[in-house]
Amino acid sequence: MPERKPAAIVTVGSELVEGLRLDTNTREIALALSSAGFWVKEAVSVGDDIELLAGTLSRLIGRYELVVGTGGLGPTHDDITREAAAMALDLELLPDEAIAERLATIASRHVRTRAADQIGLQALILAGATVLHPDSGTAPGQIVQTPRGRLVLLPGPPHEMRPMLEEFLDSGSDGVAPRILSCVGMSESDAQLAAQEGIGDAAVSLTVLATPALVDVVLIDDGAGERILAEVASRVRAALGDRCFAEDGRSLPQVVLSLARDRGITLATAESCTGGLVAAALTDISGASDTFLGGVVAYANTIKTSLLAVPDALLREYGAVSEPIAAAMATGVRDVTGAELGVSVTGVAGPAGGTADRPVGMVYFGVADSRGVLSERRDLFGDRPGIRTRACVTALDMARRRLLER
Amino acid sequence: MPERKPAAIVTVGSELVEGLRLDTNTREIALALSSAGFWVKEAVSVGDDIELLAGTLSRLIGRYELVVGTGGLGPTHDDITREAAAMALDLELLPDEAIAERLATIASRHVRTRAADQIGLQALILAGATVLHPDSGTAPGQIVQTPRGRLVLLPGPPHEMRPMLEEFLDSGSDGVAPRILSCVGMSESDAQLAAQEGIGDAAVSLTVLATPALVDVVLIDDGAGERILAEVASRVRAALGDRCFAEDGRSLPQVVLSLARDRGITLATAESCTGGLVAAALTDISGASDTFLGGVVAYANTIKTSLLAVPDALLREYGAVSEPIAAAMATGVRDVTGAELGVSVTGVAGPAGGTADRPVGMVYFGVADSRGVLSERRDLFGDRPGIRTRACVTALDMARRRLLER
Repeated sequence: MPERKPAAIVTVGSELVEGLRLDTNTREIALALSSAGFWVKEAVSVGDDIELLAGTLSRLIGRYELVVGTGGLGPTHDDITREAAAMALDLELLPDEAIAERLATIASRHVRTRAADQIGLQALILAGATVLHPDSGTAPGQIVQTPRGRLVLLPGPPHEMRPMLEEFLDSGSDGVAPRILSCVGMSESDAQLAAQEGIGDAAVSLTVLATPALVDVVLIDDGAGERILAEVASRVRAALGDRCFAEDGRSLPQVVLSLARDRGITLATAESCTGGLVAAALTDISGASDTFLGGVVAYANTIKTSLLAVPDALLREYGAVSEPIAAAMATGVRDVTGAELGVSVTGVAGPAGGTADRPVGMVYFGVADSRGVLSERRDLFGDRPGIRTRACVTALDMARRRLLER
Repeated sequence: MPERKPAAIVTVGSELVEGLRLDTNTREIALALSSAGFWVKEAVSVGDDIELLAGTLSRLIGRYELVVGTGGLGPTHDDITREAAAMALDLELLPDEAIAERLATIASRHVRTRAADQIGLQALILAGATVLHPDSGTAPGQIVQTPRGRLVLLPGPPHEMRPMLEEFLDSGSDGVAPRILSCVGMSESDAQLAAQEGIGDAAVSLTVLATPALVDVVLIDDGAGERILAEVASRVRAALGDRCFAEDGRSLPQVVLSLARDRGITLATAESCTGGLVAAALTDISGASDTFLGGVVAYANTIKTSLLAVPDALLREYGAVSEPIAAAMATGVRDVTGAELGVSVTGVAGPAGGTADRPVGMVYFGVADSRGVLSERRDLFGDRPGIRTRACVTALDMARRRLLER
């Protein structure tokens, strides 16, 4: 693998430098560039100040082989990136007819007002630039040659930026793709130890990325080459065991849906403290409808009895956050929906509502299928969103493990 | 209020520019500085490269009245910020006896390794600097005069950085808090036009922040003072009309829940294409359980009939994505849960499943209460997550509007 090429990232927007929005693009772009053989040396955020941005771009273009900018490509007067880049590179901005036409169509369908006049600004392209067409959103991206390399301009919204960044990197990357082993139910440090043993003294570098309840082990070629990287990945995979649920970038809901689909098993959810997050995670995947039938958000106890047929006596005896109720919710949703596999969650997400017997973070999970029902308690930590996210991931993982046994 | 003073933020650490850690300090510091009367113009992250950091500090110190740096103050060889600042300002680093003593005590108690030798590095203070003593952690912060103003160095861990930043700002803050008007159902450009009219020639600066289907109009005092800012906010509020749902930072689900709570109205959801997102958004709010009873994720048509009592004949006649079905889902979930207000969503989230009659993005919404039922079609754009998010926001907004009529 060739030496890593120096790069910089620029994010544009007063909302970033004034603290009104958290910048997550820098991290995402930096990680993608690192994996694609670049070495990011600095990352700059600037407000909507055209002189300052032009100066910043000019400085970075003069110093780095690759400069990736995001933001400021929209249709308002705040969107100064096109113009600043034109100033920095001394290039003209020219309207692209095909883009202008597409934007006009969008404007006529969706925008009812004077804003329609402004949308056309997004059709202005730096002379000689390659256009990155948007999958969603309206702003195209642009790639332009600079004296030392390239300047890439991408839109700010992460879901618009992401596919264009991938398109750019796919077209020019000459590195070995990193291996990503996605794990659930283990700590960042355990994942790191397991991975370090598998790497040994191979020229493979390791990054461990943790989000609540999930850990990605990223193995990056650092001179080892494709074959050695594959061997390392397979050793690390063995050490991680069944806590590793994907080696191909698929998410946990994707894995659950495809395991179920392969086995001809339909799914349904019964949720209390996660309040719909498990169903939302599954239905986020296109094509979920052939496998996921639906579910019940049984937030109030009356819904647990009326829609899931949880016996009122059981609720009175054990309380809503208990093993018998998790089991009854899982069997209940299976019965009312006709799904083969029912998954349930009931717990205390906090911050209010915890007691000595039922502390915040105490969550019960149930899985029911034609072979029977099992339920399990976990004590999760974090604030309310953290506990809900961890509970959602744990419920999906219980479904995954049950499906693996089938 | 005096004019806002220009400022910059520097975060130090290779883990930031390589994407291994998300930088949250910039946002937190920027927000605190904005509220304290500074105008953050740029924010820079640099890796552990002493020449680059010294050059960056030198450039920013020459340009801004305040430069706040975080990170790189620890005891390891990667911690280069002290030395880089000394280079940039041409100042000596001198050991502070009191800090050295405190660090030696900590080292003897807690550190078992060679690190004990290094911990003393943290006692090195820029000549003439004011020391910010740590509440937790070991690294002191430093404030030093620069030709144009001040350089403030703070540790990287947020819980160590935060109290020192407060200590620094408490000693010199005189700002007016920005006003944030949160809107739904309007474009970024329309919000901007409405806001600009309200601002007129007042010394108030404007930032418009858009996320799918939501727009925040942020009004920042730029010399106008508290009273004029309040007048501007009230004019802008009037221009935005009922599309503005909050002036106090509350989210749309929070507003829906509190409108319902104030009126003693309970809520339930019936979701097809959003698959649980609306219920998840409502239950994300602590205390939702007194108002939100629960809901049904009716992804498959069988669930629409079995759990929501949607007539099979209606489904056959109109198809699942239609006004009558949205209405039947809303009345159905109201009946089966006993809630006063039922909200429903059914549509085509894509990317697959669209037809000429039912294109991707076509979504029907229903709202039912004891006064009747209404349903509405919207054509939403975006990729699958974008359409689902916009559908979720639209459903919440329909509930909000119905509640406002009660």
